[in-house]
Amino acid sequence: MASWSSSATIANLLTLEDISNASASDDRAAYGTPVLKLLAEARSKGYDATALPLTTEKWKTRWADMCLLPSGSDREMEIAAEQKAEEWRSRPCFLKDEVTITRLDEAEGVTVMVSDWLELDATDDWVRHDAEIALQQELSYASYLNVQSAILPAPRNRDHVASYARIVNQCLKNTPFIHLSIRLPVYNPSVLQTSPPSSLLTSESIASAGSLSPSGSTPRLVISGSSSEKLSAAPESELNATWEMWDLIRSMCDYNTRLTLTLDLSPPLPTKIGVLSKWAAESVRNILLPASTFIANGKGYPVLPKTTQSFIRQCMIHYPTVILAGANAGYHSRGGESAYAQYVRHLEKTSPAVQAAERAGTVENFAQGYQDYLQAPLQPLMDNLQSVTYHTFEQDPVKYRQYEEAMYRALLEWPGEGRIVACIAGAGRGPLVARCLTAIERSRREALIYAVEKNPNAFVTLQERKEREWGDKVQLLFGDMRFIDVPEKADILVSELLGSFGDNELSPECLDGAMRFLKPDGISIPSSYTAHLAPLSSSKLFNEARAAKDFKSLETPYVVMFKAVNILSGDGGGLSGKCGPQIQECWEFEHPRRDPVLDARGLPKTNSHNARSAKLHFYIPHAGVLHGLAGYFEAVLYGNIGLSIHPHRKDQISKDMLSWFPLFFPFREPLYLPSNSELQVSIWRLTNERQVWYEWHAESFLSSPVVAQSDSGLRSSSLSGIPPSPSTTVHSPLIDADDPTFAQRTGYGTPDASPGSYETVKIGQTSLHNPGGRSSWIGL
Amino acid sequence: MASWSSSATIANLLTLEDISNASASDDRAAYGTPVLKLLAEARSKGYDATALPLTTEKWKTRWADMCLLPSGSDREMEIAAEQKAEEWRSRPCFLKDEVTITRLDEAEGVTVMVSDWLELDATDDWVRHDAEIALQQELSYASYLNVQSAILPAPRNRDHVASYARIVNQCLKNTPFIHLSIRLPVYNPSVLQTSPPSSLLTSESIASAGSLSPSGSTPRLVISGSSSEKLSAAPESELNATWEMWDLIRSMCDYNTRLTLTLDLSPPLPTKIGVLSKWAAESVRNILLPASTFIANGKGYPVLPKTTQSFIRQCMIHYPTVILAGANAGYHSRGGESAYAQYVRHLEKTSPAVQAAERAGTVENFAQGYQDYLQAPLQPLMDNLQSVTYHTFEQDPVKYRQYEEAMYRALLEWPGEGRIVACIAGAGRGPLVARCLTAIERSRREALIYAVEKNPNAFVTLQERKEREWGDKVQLLFGDMRFIDVPEKADILVSELLGSFGDNELSPECLDGAMRFLKPDGISIPSSYTAHLAPLSSSKLFNEARAAKDFKSLETPYVVMFKAVNILSGDGGGLSGKCGPQIQECWEFEHPRRDPVLDARGLPKTNSHNARSAKLHFYIPHAGVLHGLAGYFEAVLYGNIGLSIHPHRKDQISKDMLSWFPLFFPFREPLYLPSNSELQVSIWRLTNERQVWYEWHAESFLSSPVVAQSDSGLRSSSLSGIPPSPSTTVHSPLIDADDPTFAQRTGYGTPDASPGSYETVKIGQTSLHNPGGRSSWIGL
Repeated sequence: MASWSSSATIANLLTLEDISNASASDDRAAYGTPVLKLLAEARSKGYDATALPLTTEKWKTRWADMCLLPSGSDREMEIAAEQKAEEWRSRPCFLKDEVTITRLDEAEGVTVMVSDWLELDATDDWVRHDAEIALQQELSYASYLNVQSAILPAPRNRDHVASYARIVNQCLKNTPFIHLSIRLPVYNPSVLQTSPPSSLLTSESIASAGSLSPSGSTPRLVISGSSSEKLSAAPESELNATWEMWDLIRSMCDYNTRLTLTLDLSPPLPTKIGVLSKWAAESVRNILLPASTFIANGKGYPVLPKTTQSFIRQCMIHYPTVILAGANAGYHSRGGESAYAQYVRHLEKTSPAVQAAERAGTVENFAQGYQDYLQAPLQPLMDNLQSVTYHTFEQDPVKYRQYEEAMYRALLEWPGEGRIVACIAGAGRGPLVARCLTAIERSRREALIYAVEKNPNAFVTLQERKEREWGDKVQLLFGDMRFIDVPEKADILVSELLGSFGDNELSPECLDGAMRFLKPDGISIPSSYTAHLAPLSSSKLFNEARAAKDFKSLETPYVVMFKAVNILSGDGGGLSGKCGPQIQECWEFEHPRRDPVLDARGLPKTNSHNARSAKLHFYIPHAGVLHGLAGYFEAVLYGNIGLSIHPHRKDQISKDMLSWFPLFFPFREPLYLPSNSELQVSIWRLTNERQVWYEWHAESFLSSPVVAQSDSGLRSSSLSGIPPSPSTTVHSPLIDADDPTFAQRTGYGTPDASPGSYETVKIGQTSLHNPGGRSSWIGL
Repeated sequence: MASWSSSATIANLLTLEDISNASASDDRAAYGTPVLKLLAEARSKGYDATALPLTTEKWKTRWADMCLLPSGSDREMEIAAEQKAEEWRSRPCFLKDEVTITRLDEAEGVTVMVSDWLELDATDDWVRHDAEIALQQELSYASYLNVQSAILPAPRNRDHVASYARIVNQCLKNTPFIHLSIRLPVYNPSVLQTSPPSSLLTSESIASAGSLSPSGSTPRLVISGSSSEKLSAAPESELNATWEMWDLIRSMCDYNTRLTLTLDLSPPLPTKIGVLSKWAAESVRNILLPASTFIANGKGYPVLPKTTQSFIRQCMIHYPTVILAGANAGYHSRGGESAYAQYVRHLEKTSPAVQAAERAGTVENFAQGYQDYLQAPLQPLMDNLQSVTYHTFEQDPVKYRQYEEAMYRALLEWPGEGRIVACIAGAGRGPLVARCLTAIERSRREALIYAVEKNPNAFVTLQERKEREWGDKVQLLFGDMRFIDVPEKADILVSELLGSFGDNELSPECLDGAMRFLKPDGISIPSSYTAHLAPLSSSKLFNEARAAKDFKSLETPYVVMFKAVNILSGDGGGLSGKCGPQIQECWEFEHPRRDPVLDARGLPKTNSHNARSAKLHFYIPHAGVLHGLAGYFEAVLYGNIGLSIHPHRKDQISKDMLSWFPLFFPFREPLYLPSNSELQVSIWRLTNERQVWYEWHAESFLSSPVVAQSDSGLRSSSLSGIPPSPSTTVHSPLIDADDPTFAQRTGYGTPDASPGSYETVKIGQTSLHNPGGRSSWIGL
């Protein structure tokens, strides 16, 4: 059970009972303190780390005596309690036996669990107020002992989560270095208490008795969370409800990087994996896994239900600390304490993300260390690339194999018997030239290659290769393909100018120039390419983008190997029926263009024909926060030979291709998207004489079924019903020109609320990004 | 019809026909050009300004010939048109007779109407693309002639308003000084075409024929806005739809201050004023008022319908330019052309806002020049006020009348016959001392006044007044009321420490100290005060707040006399039934506190009892954008004597009181709120040993009726229906302790979707503002 892997850290959770037992044991003197003895034992059992409660029952009792009013207490008792509480509030301090650790060596590498009976989101103002002081006191003490990480009790009361969040934010400010992790059951926390693996994982009813009201003479008996409404939520809403609380907390803490999640996998657990994908985009630090979550397999060994297995495997992308609780409690008949950790290691080893990263040749393996790391896209037209950059891209066996195959087929299928002229437009250091020579050889056709390159430095490498390898079969031409003169026109024009979004390295503009030396019936490889988008959530990428130093950090698309992200869209039309698939095509470029209008030099007069725009409609099945757009491309090289980084199609088209990571278009402010909403994304590819740039923007909508007027009368009452809301399609006056009467055009008097119809209500929008190419443009 | 008022500017709108007629007239030579003749005539008719179309029919024809494909055209015609279009796109330029003005003097003070057939939001990409180039060309030309303000054609196509907005934003960047005003009918623009006051106000069907597609060989016949859906919107949604388009445009233009609205009052017009209140919060520059909007009164003179009258009166807060169109067209039998302008002046004179500003003694009159101007709240405890500040506040006759009355009644009702001890805590320059002496005289009670003041400068004034006016009836005490020793305890303690939000100038903390020298059964004037909030929309205040120089500009509450604002909330419970009234109470402070726990000096040990928090639920009837919160206070001085700046109650309680403008709590990012949504506002009054501050935050929700599962099956389909959404109330585990079975607690298998029930879906949130008192705190 050694820590042979880099993904998960496995920790055990000590209980107060463990500590109490250790205190009573004979050999504790050898270790110094009971906690030191337990830490040594955990290490010897193979645990990488340990978590333990910070405070004891004594602290809980004192706090309750001061801050809560026992039922039946009289005015004198109240005043006495309030005197003690005011004394404490003015100078919060622990007594020695109210805490579990007192020495630096006891705290080393330890994660502490803050008192989980602190109700930071209690309904009662005074309970919240005094819980905040207690939390500050605990964190201040933990920080004194150099504890690096503390787990906070789960939020429990949706109505007051904003108060919980405000308190956490205050603690992050007051305690500078400590990491705070919010414990959160994947289901509604009201479920959590049913199966506690230890007494400390249980929220006991200490706070429910009532509380003293020190501000008035009439003590109020406070029932925490005393709402009388009935909880009628179904499983998905429970999952949403807990995520929604987390989202509110981290948003109100402004995505503080010292704030993380401790996902609590106490049962009950979801049986479908889909809704759990949202946690991939969140900052998950710990997974709290009680032994009671395990079921026994046929032989009595502890194993996990299928969905939980898959979920933990997925969570390996977070490099989590898996905190095992109650592993020593003997819940299962076979395997002993070590069986739980062994099982987690088994899940780690069989995690697809871990496996992909370990297998040579995969993009995941190639991208080690680059996951979720933001890189500025290349501008190979403006900047002359370095040899080392060419070297990196030439490593990709799949891309050049596809190019060779495309050239081979094009040569084979080229009509006639004569010499074929091929032109490599943008030869770089020559990888396509070499592949083209191989393709010519394989096709047994006679052919000459022109290699055009504008980078003077790479042109030296080309000269060397021509001299050493290629000889007369290749003619080198130095110059920009948009302006250079070529001795003869080509039958086949080959280029590798594509960026992560297809056209974002100006392939369309460059090939406009190169088309001057392609014969009218010639072939362009690639023959077309498309750009694709999907809405994306990732608190990591949001934080990375805004942390970038220059002001343009949230206006620039970045190249990113995605890892801790979640695509928010689903397939399906949404209620409006207008939504497309999860990942949608924006636009296409084709080469050669058909029937273009050109000037005397054979160049287009303007770049208007390379402007593009798209408006995409995405269906959002599960609530999430939009942080940006994921951009992909797909290219047809020739026939059915292509290149693709489209997540759903890349494995069929160009599996294990390494050259392109996706593009990330960030949004400045996160946009909250509810379950079953629709997102409309507008994106433009814009151009003037000197540059090309993208602008992007999104609006969100929620559809709700129209309640027929005659059925409920809801539409007639402005207070209790839903009056007609903005229609998303306001027609151009031009279409309605043949529509003669006012009533028909406006719908006056003829509400068209047929059964099963819906109305779409706008609920939010982002800023316009990169307006006027302000911060990020690509130079022509 | 002279311009005697400061609120509205009245302009006439010239048509191409007017210009054509002027060209043909004999006397045009005397003026130089036809347009100069028309401008001179407008001035002589009493118009303050003139608007005119920038381009002629010739331009429209040339643009259409180049950029649109006539039906039945062949490939050769297409290529020819595309050749011309590419030539134009590369070098956009007018021919002389395509524009109406060519000289600087023709453009002076003139507002131009951009070609209104430009479809910036056309469905066809090429029509949009070429309309953008044409718009840039027109604005560039207008800017060359030093035109200050241009009116853009109304957006028409909700599906492509984002493109319209992007283009406008680009124009604002490309044309540095010009003001752009978006023409917008108050109703759905598809209605607009029914009653054009002139041919140029009509969108003709030029663009609907089709367009050439220069990128491919197959020309596409494009029908603009070719959606097949039926428009079934009712009046309110039409209003929302146009506002929604405006909101999208100004949001995507980042609230550019050079972007304004031209509200088009072409019929049909709303018959209810309520939904129009949203325009108060927007940047309205012009009101386009066609003569055809007027109806004839009994005598045949032009008048406006009641709602339109009220709306124009309300609009006077914007100091609009009212552009009269077709006033010379003879729509009405009586009054002639001047009748329209005279009627608008009549509406101006009878506008409540104008009247209030002109009547002496009103707060509107007092606040002239301070409307929508952000001021930092006073910190009289930290800073010693200047004499001139005291002087300003002492001008308020109402406030001191109320105080005198409260003191008079308290003295009258004080039991017993002996000498009464009154104490003015915070006497300033002595206004309350003087009023107290009058009250004593009126009440015929024997009384001594102690006047406590900590401002050493004001204390000199007090000494002077004691010597000259008050003599032995007043004893002066120099010191901070929280620490000073007073010779004897008071029966009546009077203070004027209230801020715009009640407690925001630390009245609670100061009076905690002063309570040491109030007798146990003594009276505090004020005896209590409350803070009140409402959600507010105002693009002006949003821009002012973020323009403030320091980084904390959007974290500080400001004192503001509101003008161009709209309170977004309405009365009523909302669908959830939880919402309160339009303006809601946050919290209360009472003096003296009952049974406080105090230290030996008589002071509270901590300030915990002055912490407060509130969670308020607002119903939002009409869509709007939240920019901040309006804060008000109300105080009970004694008995039923009070002070109030609560908009609904101030006139009953303390009419024409001048001392306090409301507080404005800004939000950093605007939050879009749909019609019929709910806003939950959390606000905290927080405190530590050294300071007091507020934090605030909001979340938005939309309720929709639950469609019963058995009726529609919607809940069972994740693609076409609405699955159960997050419940807003996640219960504390503590309440459910007596709820034995899992199924009951979680609702598994027992969905409680009774008919008429609803579900609430979170749709958005703001940041947490002023966390940790980061930017704005009040020093203790």
